[in-house]
Amino acid sequence: MAERWDLVVQGGTVITTSESFVADVAVSQGRVAALGRLEGLAAAQGAQVVDAEGMVVVPGGVDCHVHLDMPYGGSTNSDDFASGSVAALFGGTTTIIDFATPGKGEALELGFEARRRKADGRCSTDYGFHMVMTRVCDKTLREMDRMVRQGVTSFKLFTSNPQRLMSDDGAIFRAMRRTRDNGGLVCMHAENGRVIEELIREALAAGNTGPRFHPLTRPMEAEAEATARVIALAEMAGAPVYVMHLSAARALDEVRRGRKRGVKVLSETCPQYLFLTADEYERPGFEAAKFVSSPPLRPRGNETRLWQALRDGELQAVSTDHCSFSMRSKGGKPRGAPGIGTRMLLMWDAAQRGRISPQRFVEVVASAPARIFGLYPRKGHLAPGADADIVVIDPRKTHAFGVASHHLRVDYEPYEGRTAHGVIREVFLRGRRMVSHGRFVGKPGGGAFLRRAPRDF
Amino acid sequence: MAERWDLVVQGGTVITTSESFVADVAVSQGRVAALGRLEGLAAAQGAQVVDAEGMVVVPGGVDCHVHLDMPYGGSTNSDDFASGSVAALFGGTTTIIDFATPGKGEALELGFEARRRKADGRCSTDYGFHMVMTRVCDKTLREMDRMVRQGVTSFKLFTSNPQRLMSDDGAIFRAMRRTRDNGGLVCMHAENGRVIEELIREALAAGNTGPRFHPLTRPMEAEAEATARVIALAEMAGAPVYVMHLSAARALDEVRRGRKRGVKVLSETCPQYLFLTADEYERPGFEAAKFVSSPPLRPRGNETRLWQALRDGELQAVSTDHCSFSMRSKGGKPRGAPGIGTRMLLMWDAAQRGRISPQRFVEVVASAPARIFGLYPRKGHLAPGADADIVVIDPRKTHAFGVASHHLRVDYEPYEGRTAHGVIREVFLRGRRMVSHGRFVGKPGGGAFLRRAPRDF
Amino acid sequence: MAERWDLVVQGGTVITTSESFVADVAVSQGRVAALGRLEGLAAAQGAQVVDAEGMVVVPGGVDCHVHLDMPYGGSTNSDDFASGSVAALFGGTTTIIDFATPGKGEALELGFEARRRKADGRCSTDYGFHMVMTRVCDKTLREMDRMVRQGVTSFKLFTSNPQRLMSDDGAIFRAMRRTRDNGGLVCMHAENGRVIEELIREALAAGNTGPRFHPLTRPMEAEAEATARVIALAEMAGAPVYVMHLSAARALDEVRRGRKRGVKVLSETCPQYLFLTADEYERPGFEAAKFVSSPPLRPRGNETRLWQALRDGELQAVSTDHCSFSMRSKGGKPRGAPGIGTRMLLMWDAAQRGRISPQRFVEVVASAPARIFGLYPRKGHLAPGADADIVVIDPRKTHAFGVASHHLRVDYEPYEGRTAHGVIREVFLRGRRMVSHGRFVGKPGGGAFLRRAPRDF
Amino acid sequence: MAERWDLVVQGGTVITTSESFVADVAVSQGRVAALGRLEGLAAAQGAQVVDAEGMVVVPGGVDCHVHLDMPYGGSTNSDDFASGSVAALFGGTTTIIDFATPGKGEALELGFEARRRKADGRCSTDYGFHMVMTRVCDKTLREMDRMVRQGVTSFKLFTSNPQRLMSDDGAIFRAMRRTRDNGGLVCMHAENGRVIEELIREALAAGNTGPRFHPLTRPMEAEAEATARVIALAEMAGAPVYVMHLSAARALDEVRRGRKRGVKVLSETCPQYLFLTADEYERPGFEAAKFVSSPPLRPRGNETRLWQALRDGELQAVSTDHCSFSMRSKGGKPRGAPGIGTRMLLMWDAAQRGRISPQRFVEVVASAPARIFGLYPRKGHLAPGADADIVVIDPRKTHAFGVASHHLRVDYEPYEGRTAHGVIREVFLRGRRMVSHGRFVGKPGGGAFLRRAPRDF
Repeated sequence: MAERWDLVVQGGTVITTSESFVADVAVSQGRVAALGRLEGLAAAQGAQVVDAEGMVVVPGGVDCHVHLDMPYGGSTNSDDFASGSVAALFGGTTTIIDFATPGKGEALELGFEARRRKADGRCSTDYGFHMVMTRVCDKTLREMDRMVRQGVTSFKLFTSNPQRLMSDDGAIFRAMRRTRDNGGLVCMHAENGRVIEELIREALAAGNTGPRFHPLTRPMEAEAEATARVIALAEMAGAPVYVMHLSAARALDEVRRGRKRGVKVLSETCPQYLFLTADEYERPGFEAAKFVSSPPLRPRGNETRLWQALRDGELQAVSTDHCSFSMRSKGGKPRGAPGIGTRMLLMWDAAQRGRISPQRFVEVVASAPARIFGLYPRKGHLAPGADADIVVIDPRKTHAFGVASHHLRVDYEPYEGRTAHGVIREVFLRGRRMVSHGRFVGKPGGGAFLRRAPRDF
Repeated sequence: MAERWDLVVQGGTVITTSESFVADVAVSQGRVAALGRLEGLAAAQGAQVVDAEGMVVVPGGVDCHVHLDMPYGGSTNSDDFASGSVAALFGGTTTIIDFATPGKGEALELGFEARRRKADGRCSTDYGFHMVMTRVCDKTLREMDRMVRQGVTSFKLFTSNPQRLMSDDGAIFRAMRRTRDNGGLVCMHAENGRVIEELIREALAAGNTGPRFHPLTRPMEAEAEATARVIALAEMAGAPVYVMHLSAARALDEVRRGRKRGVKVLSETCPQYLFLTADEYERPGFEAAKFVSSPPLRPRGNETRLWQALRDGELQAVSTDHCSFSMRSKGGKPRGAPGIGTRMLLMWDAAQRGRISPQRFVEVVASAPARIFGLYPRKGHLAPGADADIVVIDPRKTHAFGVASHHLRVDYEPYEGRTAHGVIREVFLRGRRMVSHGRFVGKPGGGAFLRRAPRDF
Repeated sequence: MAERWDLVVQGGTVITTSESFVADVAVSQGRVAALGRLEGLAAAQGAQVVDAEGMVVVPGGVDCHVHLDMPYGGSTNSDDFASGSVAALFGGTTTIIDFATPGKGEALELGFEARRRKADGRCSTDYGFHMVMTRVCDKTLREMDRMVRQGVTSFKLFTSNPQRLMSDDGAIFRAMRRTRDNGGLVCMHAENGRVIEELIREALAAGNTGPRFHPLTRPMEAEAEATARVIALAEMAGAPVYVMHLSAARALDEVRRGRKRGVKVLSETCPQYLFLTADEYERPGFEAAKFVSSPPLRPRGNETRLWQALRDGELQAVSTDHCSFSMRSKGGKPRGAPGIGTRMLLMWDAAQRGRISPQRFVEVVASAPARIFGLYPRKGHLAPGADADIVVIDPRKTHAFGVASHHLRVDYEPYEGRTAHGVIREVFLRGRRMVSHGRFVGKPGGGAFLRRAPRDF
Repeated sequence: MAERWDLVVQGGTVITTSESFVADVAVSQGRVAALGRLEGLAAAQGAQVVDAEGMVVVPGGVDCHVHLDMPYGGSTNSDDFASGSVAALFGGTTTIIDFATPGKGEALELGFEARRRKADGRCSTDYGFHMVMTRVCDKTLREMDRMVRQGVTSFKLFTSNPQRLMSDDGAIFRAMRRTRDNGGLVCMHAENGRVIEELIREALAAGNTGPRFHPLTRPMEAEAEATARVIALAEMAGAPVYVMHLSAARALDEVRRGRKRGVKVLSETCPQYLFLTADEYERPGFEAAKFVSSPPLRPRGNETRLWQALRDGELQAVSTDHCSFSMRSKGGKPRGAPGIGTRMLLMWDAAQRGRISPQRFVEVVASAPARIFGLYPRKGHLAPGADADIVVIDPRKTHAFGVASHHLRVDYEPYEGRTAHGVIREVFLRGRRMVSHGRFVGKPGGGAFLRRAPRDF
């Protein structure tokens, strides 16, 4: 017998990664029960009915690269799991993957548990963690296996930040080798840290400080080189690799070449590399500092190649690398930018303008990150049996990005003044209504930790 | 109110181009009404219930390249629309696109009407036609526009067969130019006919006759060259092009290059180029003649690159180029081979073996050809609102290909003796049961002519 | 014993395709006898001594693509072998290869003999002929063999000019096939004539006449396509191919790809594609008509890729496609432009400016064309034993191009007003002084017909 | 007045990088004075006349990568500058470039002077040094400038050998940056040392020792990766880079890509990678150990791509990486192999067999290394003014490689038993006869240190 339905989202245009069709979506016990013309059916008796006529219905967004409550250089993010996850929900994102960084010499598990304590009971989206690895040795390799079994199936390493985070090629190779066997996935920050260090040294010696010089010290070649390198390491290790925040089109060429050789390379980019360019660094003073991230914004023209790659499927996912430090606290150490709440509408707007299809929109903001990071088939799609993470977009209204609407604590918004065709009207997390008509109506901190599955590709 | 349902296919694993999930499929008035856990719902009262537990449920196949009831060199195909379409249904194909060839000097409409008279009331699948063009002039260009309006939106031209079918580059260019504006799509047989003519002349002069010499007179370079050329013509015309029966991996390279330049190139291959190789021509006598088609089977190794392209999405569709002349009638003029009924199971078997994913299976045999040729969203997918063309496959049983099971009149079967993991158990056309447990249970000749939409890409 | 020397060119910087060194060049009986410090040697007693201190000494230029005394559309070239060859010598070119075009149905030999009658006793440079083929049949194929034996070892065919010159792919293939065996070389005019015909038809229908529309009716894609095609034909024929007057960088890509597949592809470009761009077509009226040639001048930017290819060795030769019709006679049928006398200094000037090395200069204007067309080791280089075709350039002086200095009968000069760093001071043909300090001092009509060797690559 | 000639090599076929011609070569005061038919000329009165009729005359070989008298792991090379340079002369090589490695913390100059003390008065060929850099800091960067001024214009760094020699990417980048400005050239050993270290660790842990496992711990991907990386570093530094002993075809692809991006990449390979394959590691015991070098011999098939690249000019030079440890001393630490004396005949034999042209032979063994390393125009070619380093080869005789004929102290010969078409009959160094008919007739230790010029490309 069909289960009784708790919720029916009625009459909207459902968008999946392959189709668009008008259908009601029935939810039972937090899961999608049926799609189709369901109006008036017995199972719907008593169900909450949400009218979505004229609306677009998509799966809840999966943002697989965020930093909440992250300490850095003496200060801490403006936004913690409480405020950040609510902003995410307002923006249509129902699942996030953040990072757990063990302390120096600390076991991976301890680092993981410390992060859970920050998120559990505070995070309003569902959530998981990548494990940051700064030390690869026999002990931590064994710990990796245990983490995979605990549902932390991805590991982040760096070719950059020699002072704090960088691993040498041998360490990266070993970690990848381990994931070959334990079902984990190595995620890379790919920029050549040593060259960047030299370029910064040269810049400082020449008195070239300020945001304008930031992209010059982190050239696209440094990203392309490191990308090529981590792909070669993956190839030799017989393991896949996920390239994070790919920003330079030349790095894409390396991804393409790796795939042609048969290496399993996955890659994401971020909205900032799609919508913004290095021109922002020409803004006066503080205004430019907002855009200092690593990798930096790239020269005009670069972004068109990223869009092409997004269309062609060469870039799999769009994540945010959300990292919000208030302008006050950023001081001389700018690092990252907020984005957790703007991603979905920015990308939906791009789909409306024809830069990607509605199908690709769903793919890159939800389905692909869910699949890659072991959350499929629960997350990232609307089909019978999936978690009822449902976003209803009103495509006829207009949203204005800005501090006034971003629901974050951070005191600036990179897209201030920009607008999108589309407003997020309803957001459901496992069938529970979280956001409705611009108000948060859910239970704060009701998100669940997601044990992610080992990779199956 | 939800419509009453006529049919529920219950408990199978539905495969779409992006997902696999267990769901019931409800049908109302020939269309898919809902997917999900639907058992026991009011709307299903009185519906025919088909138990698909443990089964795979996919959309009906779309074969966009078949030749039924085709006269050639004095004889005619062994199979007409009646026998051919029944064989198609047994094989899980519910929609076919055949060809209309006007007589010399005849208006396109007349050629089209003549073909409809052959198919109407006889064809048991739904069907459409490509228009063959052998003469491009002001008059036929105007006729093209009218054909598009009548739902015949694709036009086939040849760079081969200088004696009967070949168009020169100017003619092809003009036809493409016209489709740029009228929403049609030019489909090409791409082999260099003039060079082939010379190679045949050389072969005959050297006494090199027989099937063994067939591939030598139609080398892969001749296909690659013509493919490159028609893509260049499309580029200059500002129009898309569909490359039919792509067989040589080198032709694929040309498709890839064209796309990289921004040309909209679509391409199909056929099972014979995926499952068979030129080794077949080494068979004795008559046995080898079965495999004489144009393009010919290609050397071992070539097929692995086609499979790769199929996986990567570089080949969009798998059609059959079905053309069945009995061995008796073939005589000295072999041409083509039967395939209309074997395509789906051959490809499903390949999916079972991991050569393509189940999602790609659905894409290449149904969804993609439907989209490309203006049949979407009616055909090629299972989603609310689509035609209820449903195929139920039992993946645990084994099917033996052969004359004994192919339901055709033609007296041989290229895959004789081969088996597939999977048996087609039920086939529904617009909700009507056509094939069930190996018997034809539908109304013969009940297929509908499909007015196809102009291209929307 | 060393022969007595007739001439010593003393103290210049000799440039070869691999070196630059200061040396005297001794000549005996029309050939280079020695290079080195030869001053005061017995063998030089009585020799004419030419002081080349501070000068550059290079081999005489070989222009492998000129049209002299050519009838076209009712009129004839302004310049015949007499005036054209003298202009060549003034410009440092001592060998030319022109074309012999048999009349309709006429045997190749007769066409050849008719051309020799035009040149013999009139041409002041040494000379040879390519044979133009417009008809390929058993008879003309046999004649090709005979022509090779008579020293006419290259054959020109066209994919353009459907009304007069175009061969179909089968004919080109057959001619190439024949050269595979007889040691000849097929040279192609590679533009898609049929598409160009349609584009011209469209342009005329739209009233788009005038030089400005010329390049639009002969797009770069039409050249790239035909180039790809003739390379594919050569590949299938197992023969080399020489692509004449390559103008579009995209055609170069095809050349590169052909080579990568192992096809022996040779190619030339012409100064007009290196120094001029389609901007010239924006000139008013008659001024623009001067630049109407086929292929047309290409958009700005294209030429930088040709220069790169020239540097890299991807383009082998620089010829002129010299064809001088007076503006008066050109009327509505512009065709080609003069160039026979300007090539060497234009290219030398480019070498001075660093666009190519001095070594590449010698290679592309002399050595490579000599090798490709069977004139090596007699022509194209300065080494013991070679013909003493010697050009002395004064690199410190400046030459002004223009009607006033081009020594032709044609009434315009494409490079009017342009200057070059360098003046051609002395020109020797087989040791005989032809040009000295701006005056013609040789015997008019003293050039020799060159029997060229079959290809040895 | 012409100088008096000391030597005339008479009647041979002189091969240059662009030509082959019969000529006498006259020498005066150690330099080439003239080429041509010089017999009986006054200047030749009293000159030593060497009959080279039927012989081939080429410039003396330049081996830009040798290790003589090198200490390693407790032992020292079997061959020092005395024995090694004599073997070189027997083999037709008249110039070598060895390495100077400063001790830990030692100034570059001191390391250089120490090496000069080893070579001066002992080396019978002319010679120069590359400077090995294992430490890059402000001090050593300044020392680099001084070394360039002293004629040591190339610097070797390693991405391999983490325990002893490896520089990190920042150090390599800085050294390259310095050469951008000081005219030096960075030469790289390009293999990923960290990955190799891990692979060796894995091999040891698995008990996989012995020569058979050597290539598995140094895979081609590790070379390709490091090659790509050093090219990217050069690109970012705005400097050229010379890739030493390129062995893997995939590394070549990286070289090609770098050049396409405009990076000035130069590269050499060695005879062992052209003539031998990893099959040698299948030999029993000690026999296999002879072939243990870094990079290792590569799988069969790889070498054909190197030959192709040598023909196409994608590899510029063939050096030996000569390093001769006796089998006795090699023990568990095999490293390198002898080759200083076999290179020229191996390559000449290849030219005879048509694998490269005679012109390319001269280019890769002499002219190109001379140009790249600042020895041109003195070394590497036979033209008036060049050093009279002349090698006379008798192409009709056969040479047998082996310990019996290699004139080295080392106790094995990798090419034992192989033969070459050709015997080196005479070798002249700056006009002085060093080897004649198989006997050393020169003055031992008479080689000169060569101050090399800064790069001019």
